[in-house]
Formats: sequence, structure tokens, C-alpha cells
Amino acid sequence: MEMYSKAETLELRKKHIGPSCKVFFAKDPIKIVCARGQYMFDENGEKYLDCINNVAHVGHSHPDVVKAAVKQMELLNTNSRFLHDNLVQYAKRLTATLPEPLSVCYFVNSGSEANDLALRLARQYRGHQDVITLDHAYHGHVTSLIDISPYKFNQLGKEAKKEFVHVAPSPDIYRGKYRDDHPDPGSAYADDVKKIIEEAQKNGRKIAAFIAESMQSCGGQVIPPAGYFQKVADAVHKAGGVFIADEVQVGFGRVGKKFWGFQLQGEDFVPDIVTMGKPIGNGHPMSCVVTTREIAEAFGACGLEYFNTFGGNPVSCAIGLAVLDVIEKEDLQGNATRVGNYLTGLLKEQKEKHPLVGDVRGVGLFVGVDLVKDRQKRTPATAEAQHIIYKLKEQRILLSADGPYRNILKFKPPMCFTMEDAKFVVDQIDEILTDLEDSTINRTRDELPTSIQSKRKMPPDGSSQLECINESISHINGSACRQKNGFYAENNTVPCKRIRT
Amino acid sequence: MEMYSKAETLELRKKHIGPSCKVFFAKDPIKIVCARGQYMFDENGEKYLDCINNVAHVGHSHPDVVKAAVKQMELLNTNSRFLHDNLVQYAKRLTATLPEPLSVCYFVNSGSEANDLALRLARQYRGHQDVITLDHAYHGHVTSLIDISPYKFNQLGKEAKKEFVHVAPSPDIYRGKYRDDHPDPGSAYADDVKKIIEEAQKNGRKIAAFIAESMQSCGGQVIPPAGYFQKVADAVHKAGGVFIADEVQVGFGRVGKKFWGFQLQGEDFVPDIVTMGKPIGNGHPMSCVVTTREIAEAFGACGLEYFNTFGGNPVSCAIGLAVLDVIEKEDLQGNATRVGNYLTGLLKEQKEKHPLVGDVRGVGLFVGVDLVKDRQKRTPATAEAQHIIYKLKEQRILLSADGPYRNILKFKPPMCFTMEDAKFVVDQIDEILTDLEDSTINRTRDELPTSIQSKRKMPPDGSSQLECINESISHINGSACRQKNGFYAENNTVPCKRIRT
Repeated sequence: MEMYSKAETLELRKKHIGPSCKVFFAKDPIKIVCARGQYMFDENGEKYLDCINNVAHVGHSHPDVVKAAVKQMELLNTNSRFLHDNLVQYAKRLTATLPEPLSVCYFVNSGSEANDLALRLARQYRGHQDVITLDHAYHGHVTSLIDISPYKFNQLGKEAKKEFVHVAPSPDIYRGKYRDDHPDPGSAYADDVKKIIEEAQKNGRKIAAFIAESMQSCGGQVIPPAGYFQKVADAVHKAGGVFIADEVQVGFGRVGKKFWGFQLQGEDFVPDIVTMGKPIGNGHPMSCVVTTREIAEAFGACGLEYFNTFGGNPVSCAIGLAVLDVIEKEDLQGNATRVGNYLTGLLKEQKEKHPLVGDVRGVGLFVGVDLVKDRQKRTPATAEAQHIIYKLKEQRILLSADGPYRNILKFKPPMCFTMEDAKFVVDQIDEILTDLEDSTINRTRDELPTSIQSKRKMPPDGSSQLECINESISHINGSACRQKNGFYAENNTVPCKRIRT
Repeated sequence: MEMYSKAETLELRKKHIGPSCKVFFAKDPIKIVCARGQYMFDENGEKYLDCINNVAHVGHSHPDVVKAAVKQMELLNTNSRFLHDNLVQYAKRLTATLPEPLSVCYFVNSGSEANDLALRLARQYRGHQDVITLDHAYHGHVTSLIDISPYKFNQLGKEAKKEFVHVAPSPDIYRGKYRDDHPDPGSAYADDVKKIIEEAQKNGRKIAAFIAESMQSCGGQVIPPAGYFQKVADAVHKAGGVFIADEVQVGFGRVGKKFWGFQLQGEDFVPDIVTMGKPIGNGHPMSCVVTTREIAEAFGACGLEYFNTFGGNPVSCAIGLAVLDVIEKEDLQGNATRVGNYLTGLLKEQKEKHPLVGDVRGVGLFVGVDLVKDRQKRTPATAEAQHIIYKLKEQRILLSADGPYRNILKFKPPMCFTMEDAKFVVDQIDEILTDLEDSTINRTRDELPTSIQSKRKMPPDGSSQLECINESISHINGSACRQKNGFYAENNTVPCKRIRT
């Protein structure tokens, strides 16, 4: 069935794919040949439980989605300059999931295209240019979005922040500026945004937009405190700007009780622009921007046509409609609530048991576990998080770690994830944490270095756990890492691995 | 079969799709429900000959492409952080079509994503920022590309050109600065680029890239004169910049005798970066950037991962491979040469017959007909071009007009276009031109206004031809147009229609 052996695939990849395109588990990447539901299978038929692929939203290779795609591909796949029912039907269905003012769609091909267009809409609206973004935010890979993604531009040195970009603190009440002991962190974080606006205006600058994921994903599974978005929107509107809610990672029912992440802030909050992506087509390259009539008209008034070759083609729309149907038919929102609550509950039990677990937070099937070396200081346990990820892989479980310190275990599985799956992964984490804590205690006794943030090399004959930890250290050390950043597996060095999943 | 009547579709589109997204034939748009090969069918079963959809490269709904898509969709569609044979096999096949140094691929979702990444690669290479672009060029819809697309930013007023952008004259030997009577237009146009570089350097600016379509499409089906690219590349390299060949419109065998448009310049020319898009997946949203190892390594050395959620997924790659197979199996490159030569020959006969035809140029199935009101002055016959397009539509033929004056009939049909199709469309054009010339002569006799560039309104009881011409006039008048730029068909006004097809 396979055309190439894994070694050959890797060799060809090394030869023909840009070295900036990283693989999971650089030391021993996984070759996946098929997938169904929440399971992926490698070339030897080994089954992996998938806890990370939010793109395969309704489950890998869902037959209803495939069927809808085939039916439409056999008939017609063309651009949106011709009238087609799929386009308008899909726009009608999508906008029906949103508060009423959000009624006008632009169909594009990726979250990056969506966020870029959102910025164009925002800037055209009042002719303002500046953008307020959250610390650690990632909004996409095109030039305009690297500019507003501290997650990316902070890696390029101090000069990398452009003058028109203003970075507000991430509203993280566990590890941010205002924490769970603050009486009103929502207002405090919003006040910081107000101050940024005032400062910008003092310097003659004009705010076009505030952009934020409804819940920060790469930023560390951050759930903004209640009231934050309302207060920010208020300040941004007063400054003539718009509020862009990036739902690329968290939209489409993942949070369970609501269809969109921003709706968790309450009925009284409505963004001006919503961008959506990843789960929208269950893997098919498609994406959308939805905005108000007023903003759409202002964009139209500039006189430029907006044409997107593939955006809104009948096949993409047929797939999008099928995804919406499956979410409803299989009650995946209900499942996200039920399994999400169960998973969060199990993880909270782990917190009782293991001092490494500092915080468990989540809504529906968007869950983060913040690992700490010290509960009081909340010191990020980065290497331990990487260790767990690698150990889980050995158990055929796919999980990732993210956040500014890459110490947050990140759950965002296909929405068909079950109670059994949740139990299985948490049991494995339990075992790994137990082993890890035991080994740390033993090592402390033997007076081996306990600080795994040390840059000291571990002895080459260290245990496999130490090797894993050591590999993680090389990830943390940014500058060393940058120099080593050739191909994965080249000279057996481990490249810089700052991955967004 | 239809969910909505055409009127309902239009109504829903007006309500839910951004007004900047235009339809073909605003006055009476076409609803297409299926397509096969070079034919499209509307809701009444009427068959249209498609002369414009280069995206449906191997023919609409090609069964081999659909089959490959389904087969892979049923198995797996995931991201490129997992190893997969389709990715590397496709990269191997694609790079095999290119000169050897072009060996490293980045898979993305659209021509816009490809050109944006090309700019990022170019800028990272030596840390330079400036870009030289051709006049009338269009390279995509994201922010960074609007910036380097005079076709777009010129519509936004004089202030719209950014300081880092340098516009070189379009190497159009029919209507450009150096024409067919020049002894060496290639060198003359290249010298202009050299002067731009010198001037920029005098001002302390550094050239990152020269970007050009291998043949300008929206710019007016412009075939650059021999030797131009070599000389430009030479000057750009000396300045530390790279040459980006944008093959999004013209690549994949469309030019017949070569697989890539840039190869028409000769074996001694190799771009540093090639971007590809539209035809690559026969309508599936996919696209690619190919570059040299040196540039790819420099990009990797910045330490930023490049991750594209959908780019290079196994389904896109399976489709890409199927498209390459069909091009070979059905000898579509050979067909492009044979039918292209025949079509160009027929059109040249029209030039002998009709004074409106000023120039016929093309290679393979990329052909342009430059319509003029005066052969000596080469005055663009914009309204006539629009008239022809509308009249052809009545004959169920889809053709478009483009170029800076929108007076160039633009042929870029699916590659399965036949001799009969060519004969049919040229016969129709012949009739329309004959009628048009007759009517102009009659009107001149009756002392009706002959200058169709006049902004004067035609009498409402004018002939249908006059109405068409009148509609075209409203397109030309930029500022009036901009104010009217609401929804198509709203208040029966005709919106600004500057479309890229």
C-alpha cells in the first residue's frame, strides 16, 4: 500500500520540503496512512488516539462529508462569479448561527486569508491603521499576520514589532498580570487595553481593530474572564475601531454550550467581525469572514473588487454544509459538553494527586492543563510537558503542549471524542506523572541536577526520560536552537520546534 | 434539482455575500449548475462554451481528478506534520518539471498565499525589503500583495503606492513604452529595471525581489520580449535580490511547448522562486511555492516554523498528482500547442478583416486580442470589447476582457479546448465585429456620437448594442463608478466591474 518506506519518505521530505515545515516528534516522526473518527493509523496499522486534530472536527474521513464532496465534485467546482445555490445556502446557514448583525460573508481558503481580510475590512472601515493584539497571540502565517502575532514576531528580536502594533496583556487569570485572586480581572485587563488606546491616540495614532481569539489557543488555552470582551469592545468602538473575534481554532461548537467561543462572554457581546477556519470543512481548505452590513458596505465603497479564486466554490460550500449537518445530526455540541466536562473532571482529579498539575481549565473539548514545577510560583514545567507528550506518543496517544512556555497540555480532539477516550488518556497521564515525580525524587536523592531548565547536558547514558527532558531543553534555548534549525533529524540534532496545532 | 430560483439565489447573495464580491455579467448573471470538459450548463440546461476558466485546467469535473480526491478523502486528510507519501511524491513530481535548482517546495492554499510566502522568502534571504513589480500587475488579494499590485492599488489614489514598492513598465511591445518597432525591446525594458534599482540604491533602499507573471494576465496578456527576464534577473541578483516568477495563471503546460511560462525565455533563465496556483488542483484550493535550497535554508535559519494548516494535505496532493497525470495522459500540452496555434491563426485572420483587431498575441492556450479604435494610435476599444463579451454571452460563449483598458479579449480555456471550439468562438466574434463595424458606420452617417469614450448618456431607446456600449462606459468612469459601487443590480445601476478571471 505504501509507495515509500518511512525512511524513504523522510529522505524525500528532507530533499523537497522546506526545512521550516516541521514534523511532529522530530526524533521519530509518525507516518499516518489513514484515519477514522478520533483515530489515526500508521503504516504498520498501529492505532493512535487523536487528542489534537481540531481540524478533523466531526471526525477524520467522515463519510457524510466525503459523500457531499464527491457529489458536488462530480457536478461542478467553479468560482463565485457564477451564481450557485450552495454559496448562498451556506452563507444563510452560517450566519444563522451568529447574532443578527453578523450577516455578510466572504469565503476564503484558510484562517490566514480570513484574518488578513478581516484586517483589510477593519482598516477600510474608518481609514485607521493600528491594531491591538494580545500577547502570545498567533493569527496566521501571511506577512500582515506575522506582524500582529507576538507568538511569531517575538522570536525575531526586539525590532520586529511594528509601530502600528500594540500588544495588550493576555487575559490569563492563572499566569497573567491579573490573576484568580483579583476581584475583577476582566475589568483590569480591559483597562489595560483602554490605556493602550489612550497612549496610542496621544501619539496621533488611530486604532483600526482589536483582534483576539475568543479563547487563546497557542497562547496557552486561555479563557478570558467574564466581561472582558464587552469592555474592550466598548473602548475600541469609542476609538473608531472594530472588534475582530478569531474563531479559527475554537468555533463550530467546540465549547459545547455555545456554537461560538465569543458567546461564552454573554448575549450582550457581539464582535464586529468573526473569522473562522480550521474545523469549517473538516480538513478541506476553506474558511470564512463574517461581518456587519455597515462594515461590508464601507469595504465595497473603496471600489476594489474582492475576488478569491477558490473561495466559496460549490464543493467547499457543499462540504461546509455537510459539516454543519453532522454537528447537528450527531449532537456533537452536546457531546463536547458531556465529554468535555468529564475530561476536565478527570484532569482536576489529577491536580489533586500530582503537584505538577498547576491548573486545569477548559470549556467543552477545548481544555488546557498548565504544568508547574512549583505551585506557588507557578514556574512553568516545560520540559515535563514535552516529556509527557513524548511518553504519550509511545502509548499511541497524540497530544501537544503549547503556550508561551510550552508547558500547557492542549486538548482539542475531534468532536466525536468519547468518555472512554478521555479516561484512557488521563489514565496514561496519571502513570507518566507518577513515574516522572518518582524519578525526580530519586534524582534529587542522588544529587543529580534537579533544575531541568539548566542548559547543562545530561550524561549520554541517562535514562530515556532524561533524554526526553534533555531534548526539550534544546527546544527552550532559543538562540542555540536557531542555529541548529536545519532539517529535523539532520546530524541527529533536534530542531527548534515551536508548533501550532 | 435547484434549491432556489435564480431570483431567490440573487436575493440571498445580495443579503449574505460581501458587495465587493462581483458576479460575471452584472446585469444578468449566470447560474451554473454543472460543467464537464470545456462546457458549463445553466439551470435551464443551456450549454456554455468556456473560454476563460483556466482553473478547470484539465476540464471541468474531470473524472480522474474526482476519483483521486475521493479515494484519498475516504482514507485520510490531515496536516503535513505527519509524514505522508502523497506530499513527497507530489513534491518530487512537481520539482521534476522545473530546472534543477528549483527543488524545495512549500505547499499552501492559494496563489495569494503562495505569492505572500514568496515575498517572505525573498525578504528573509538577505534582509532586504523592497520589491520591484510591473505596471498593471496583479499578484493576489492579501494585504502584502495589494501593496505590490498596481492593478489594485492604482485604484486607491496616488497615495496608495508604498515607499518600498517600485513599479517598472510592463514589457508590452504592442502598447508599452518600447514597441515592436524597437530594435531590442527586451534590453530596453530591462534597462528600465536597472535604472529603478540604481535610483532605489541611491536612496539607501535595498531590493528584495523582482516579481512578475511569466506572462502578464490581468495586465493584458503580455508576452515579455526575448532576453528580458535574463537581463532583469542579472540586475536583481547584483542588487542582492531574487527573481520571483508568478506562474499562477500561466503555468502547467498552458503555453504548450513548455510546461512553465518562464521557460519561453530560454534554457539560460531560471527564476529563484516560482509560485503556482489556479490550475494546480483543477479547482481544488491548493497552491505551491518552489525555490532553491539556498533560499529555503536562509528562511529556515530565521528560526520561525512555517506551518500551513491545509497546505500539502494528502487529499490536495492526490489531486495535484492526478492533474499532472491527466496533462500527460491526454497530451494536453500538445493540445494547447495545436489548438492554440489554430486559434491564434483564426484570430489573425480576423485582424486582416476587422480594423478593430489591433493585435493578436498568444502562446498555446493563453491568447489575447487587443482591440483598438484606431490602428495607428492604438486607442483601446474598451466599450467594444465589453460589447463583444456581452454579445458572446448571448451566444452561450464565456469570454472576458482585461488589461489596463479592459480592451483585450482574453482566452484561457480549459486545456481540452478543441479546434471546433476555436472555430466556433472566432466565427461568433467575426459576426459581432461585422455588426459592430456596420452599426458604427451607420451611426456616423446619422451623426450620432461616435466617440464611445464620451460620458454622454445614450438615449434610452438606443439599440441593444448601444446599451451594451453605454454600460461599458459606466465601467470606465472610475469615480462615478466608485460611488455607485453597491450591490450589482441594486437600483439597476451597473457596478464597477474590474474583474480578474
